Amino acid sequence: MQNTYQQPSQRPEKQNRARMLISCPDRPGIVAAVSEFLYQHGANIVQSDQYSMDPGGGMFFIRFEFDLKDLEKELPILQEDFARVADRFDMKWNIFRAARRKRLAIFVSKEDHCLLELLWQWQAGDLDAEIAMVISNHPDMRELVESFGIPYIHIPVTADTKAEAERKQLEAVSGKADLIVLARYMQIITPKFIEQFPNRIINIHHSFLPAFVGGKPYAQAYQRGVKIIGATAHYVTEELDGGPIIEQDVQRVSHRDNVDDLKRIGRTIERVVLARGVKWHIEDRILVHQNKTVVFN
Amino acid sequence: MQNTYQQPSQRPEKQNRARMLISCPDRPGIVAAVSEFLYQHGANIVQSDQYSMDPGGGMFFIRFEFDLKDLEKELPILQEDFARVADRFDMKWNIFRAARRKRLAIFVSKEDHCLLELLWQWQAGDLDAEIAMVISNHPDMRELVESFGIPYIHIPVTADTKAEAERKQLEAVSGKADLIVLARYMQIITPKFIEQFPNRIINIHHSFLPAFVGGKPYAQAYQRGVKIIGATAHYVTEELDGGPIIEQDVQRVSHRDNVDDLKRIGRTIERVVLARGVKWHIEDRILVHQNKTVVFN
Amino acid sequence: MQNTYQQPSQRPEKQNRARMLISCPDRPGIVAAVSEFLYQHGANIVQSDQYSMDPGGGMFFIRFEFDLKDLEKELPILQEDFARVADRFDMKWNIFRAARRKRLAIFVSKEDHCLLELLWQWQAGDLDAEIAMVISNHPDMRELVESFGIPYIHIPVTADTKAEAERKQLEAVSGKADLIVLARYMQIITPKFIEQFPNRIINIHHSFLPAFVGGKPYAQAYQRGVKIIGATAHYVTEELDGGPIIEQDVQRVSHRDNVDDLKRIGRTIERVVLARGVKWHIEDRILVHQNKTVVFN
Amino acid sequence: MQNTYQQPSQRPEKQNRARMLISCPDRPGIVAAVSEFLYQHGANIVQSDQYSMDPGGGMFFIRFEFDLKDLEKELPILQEDFARVADRFDMKWNIFRAARRKRLAIFVSKEDHCLLELLWQWQAGDLDAEIAMVISNHPDMRELVESFGIPYIHIPVTADTKAEAERKQLEAVSGKADLIVLARYMQIITPKFIEQFPNRIINIHHSFLPAFVGGKPYAQAYQRGVKIIGATAHYVTEELDGGPIIEQDVQRVSHRDNVDDLKRIGRTIERVVLARGVKWHIEDRILVHQNKTVVFN
Repeated sequence: MQNTYQQPSQRPEKQNRARMLISCPDRPGIVAAVSEFLYQHGANIVQSDQYSMDPGGGMFFIRFEFDLKDLEKELPILQEDFARVADRFDMKWNIFRAARRKRLAIFVSKEDHCLLELLWQWQAGDLDAEIAMVISNHPDMRELVESFGIPYIHIPVTADTKAEAERKQLEAVSGKADLIVLARYMQIITPKFIEQFPNRIINIHHSFLPAFVGGKPYAQAYQRGVKIIGATAHYVTEELDGGPIIEQDVQRVSHRDNVDDLKRIGRTIERVVLARGVKWHIEDRILVHQNKTVVFN
Repeated sequence: MQNTYQQPSQRPEKQNRARMLISCPDRPGIVAAVSEFLYQHGANIVQSDQYSMDPGGGMFFIRFEFDLKDLEKELPILQEDFARVADRFDMKWNIFRAARRKRLAIFVSKEDHCLLELLWQWQAGDLDAEIAMVISNHPDMRELVESFGIPYIHIPVTADTKAEAERKQLEAVSGKADLIVLARYMQIITPKFIEQFPNRIINIHHSFLPAFVGGKPYAQAYQRGVKIIGATAHYVTEELDGGPIIEQDVQRVSHRDNVDDLKRIGRTIERVVLARGVKWHIEDRILVHQNKTVVFN
Repeated sequence: MQNTYQQPSQRPEKQNRARMLISCPDRPGIVAAVSEFLYQHGANIVQSDQYSMDPGGGMFFIRFEFDLKDLEKELPILQEDFARVADRFDMKWNIFRAARRKRLAIFVSKEDHCLLELLWQWQAGDLDAEIAMVISNHPDMRELVESFGIPYIHIPVTADTKAEAERKQLEAVSGKADLIVLARYMQIITPKFIEQFPNRIINIHHSFLPAFVGGKPYAQAYQRGVKIIGATAHYVTEELDGGPIIEQDVQRVSHRDNVDDLKRIGRTIERVVLARGVKWHIEDRILVHQNKTVVFN
Repeated sequence: MQNTYQQPSQRPEKQNRARMLISCPDRPGIVAAVSEFLYQHGANIVQSDQYSMDPGGGMFFIRFEFDLKDLEKELPILQEDFARVADRFDMKWNIFRAARRKRLAIFVSKEDHCLLELLWQWQAGDLDAEIAMVISNHPDMRELVESFGIPYIHIPVTADTKAEAERKQLEAVSGKADLIVLARYMQIITPKFIEQFPNRIINIHHSFLPAFVGGKPYAQAYQRGVKIIGATAHYVTEELDGGPIIEQDVQRVSHRDNVDDLKRIGRTIERVVLARGVKWHIEDRILVHQNKTVVFN
């Protein structure tokens, strides 16, 4: 089982770097088998991270980062050969070339702070991806987005045109995006859309989940009188705000902060948390098991 | 409306220090009226904190800390005189003498870490209260508690003896405790008990409320895969884990932390959060309005 | 003693809001005198914060936020009258009109992240100031800055032209800026410049001061193997990185983070810390005493 | 090169668990060689962590945790065989049996909070070590320590008796302690003592190093007006407060906090930071290279 979608643009300096993600039932010999395999194929492991749910019979997760001479040419051979190892251990696995930047489609509504953070980190070279397009149900941010040289696609969504809008969205991203980022996109994503991008849609929810699921979380937080607010980046599943959590962060607030203050303070948390989640995804640091993430960061 | 319960032990160095807590509908002239009143009565304000929910017609909260010569003798006069100011502004108010330590009754079950933290801070002089007694539904901590010179009252609670146990608890604390601290006390407190100590029962809940209300919050947190866990100190009301939040704190966790790790990490958070909440209460820094706290710390 | 520089632009919604900052030797009656004075002049105190260094004879600091009808017309009268109160208590004091936005001159070199954060928060309405100009020793950010409608002044600085460059800088800001913000400006500010803007130049230093004073703090931090890095916003004084600290924040790092990682992580801390420092200054929340700040936030 | 000191007490549940720490110059094939070696010897790797300073020619660090049947009997054989692998890669290495608790000698002066935290975590089962003795230059804590069943050795230190006191200390710990913990021990440790315990003496310094090296760090922090204070656990080297940093943590403070408040707040940070550092050491999670630590936690 292996990810096959194409990633276009190249980073010469990481030309021979690859990342391997494996999850499988735990049993003796996995690390030895994989590292021996890589060594035999001339790959030099530059980083490894491993997590075993339970030594006595749970799941095993491992991430290797390795360098291999002539990676572009050698990788297909290595992948073909690896199938035997993978079969032996009943592995789910992927190998990603670091030089192939992932392509992002960013969805946005009217709040621009999360989009701006991504654009900005991207421009600063901190977000090693290609931003293929920005899709919005509003026309407002066209000028901003196009000033970065990024295509802006305005797809209005109304109660009547939901199905048609989604069809257009899917057409826009199909074959052109490896990851969908909901950067404060305020429309519901349907199961039909989600199944096209399993664990490849990241949403930022403006609360410390599972507190304050659903709408107006800052108003809910103010009402409850919490002393700390937060934000959560998670993969989107059919359950609203219920998908695997990738990252969370928080900040202290006080009785002095009204709902607008919470929104203002929260904007900074949201920006940072979403950017971290996206960064870890595009660096192939996240494995999903059941409804939880293993993040090797 | 004024708090009249008695506080016994004396701290000579704060002999003339008092703390005044006021909440009232907001309108012009409150600060002027109170500070002028205090000045006229010879009191020197050493700290003031103020919070106005909404300048255009909400609630107003203020805390004064002041020194007054011969406080013990002068306070009754000052209080009597203040009634006129209070009436004019429709104030709820209290004046507490700093030299009179509040008397705590600490309730505990089998987990000792929150109790130990309180005993320890108390012994180090960081918790300026009198620990009047420790009440437990288990006999386990008698030796520990008595080694601090504190009475230990073992009141077993079973399904059959609940009502009787509560009667004994109320008898034990009645007139002898100003604040009830539930330091991981695992029994439900009934409305009958709560109404004897309105906003004077502090509980530590081992989650970042309102996430994971109820039992086994660490197991719930593990299940949901959160990346940060927390603890919450709150006043106890009839709604389970729903009372006014006093303080919260959190710590980062990862996929590597299993339920036992969460419990271990959480113990440190719980200790710190409960101790802070108790400290603020006994320093008369907390005002409750509706279901929220104003904490002047 | 009173601040007299002019602030131009107006915010109608805060037309009648003023902020008063006072520091003076501590003695009885200060709060009463000021609040009574304000009440007599028809001002409604909407927020007050007070800090007393030492009840037995230190300094006293207070901040009032109040509303006064026809503030523009009434303020000169109130200020004139207040001189008597101020004299009695030997006060240093200022009253600022909330409706008069402070004018910022932002100095920047080649790193754009701090500038961008300020521009962005300003555009989002979170930074209630006027950005009068951006001054840089490099031409690089002209297009960016001018796209926000803000004048960009390029004043090159070389070893030979330092004095001349400073003369041009002073000419540019003189009478046109209330606050100088050094948003990663990499040139030394001379005492001559500093004395024109006492406690009105905010610098962001990219370390957790007083650790790693001077150049290349992230390289120093990496070398020392610290587990947490930080940033510090401070007022500029003649002592390099030695002025009053306004705000600091930190983030956890690990052995895995090399110098470039520290810089990247640090950029987010720097942005947030500088923006907070500037926000508190322009909201008149900071008092400086000796080499320390009192921040009423 | 291998650690040979003896560790006495046994934990049956981890009877067959071992931890292996390796550092060596980086080159291809290390992970493969070691994991293949372990697999061939019947060991099951349950956790691995790896860090490579620089793929193109730096140092390589790895930690394995593995289970091996009949460990006590098999380990000597495995160690002997591993020498060949180690030689090939020029490795510094150690294998520790998880069932052999490390023996701690805790040094303390007059402040008890760090000692208490360690005793308490030890009693709660969170600190998986044997506390062999507490050594103090004061008699004060004898009763407390002995109540835990731990030997208390009072070795007074005066200007005249320093050399003699150190001789007694060395005699006390020699062959009986694997780790020295300076839990707020206020005397200088001499190079002669340090060389007996290279990277096996952990000190808690009550500041966020390298800020405020040396005496009275809270007074220094107050003087400088910092907005965040911290504590640092580090290995002791000849340079005062200059050894490899293991862990740091911080907490926010404000102008309201005087030196005593900083000390009080700091106590909680010190306790937590020291306990974390000790925990990581006794779980064999720390590698030292030059003056920095690699912590696999």
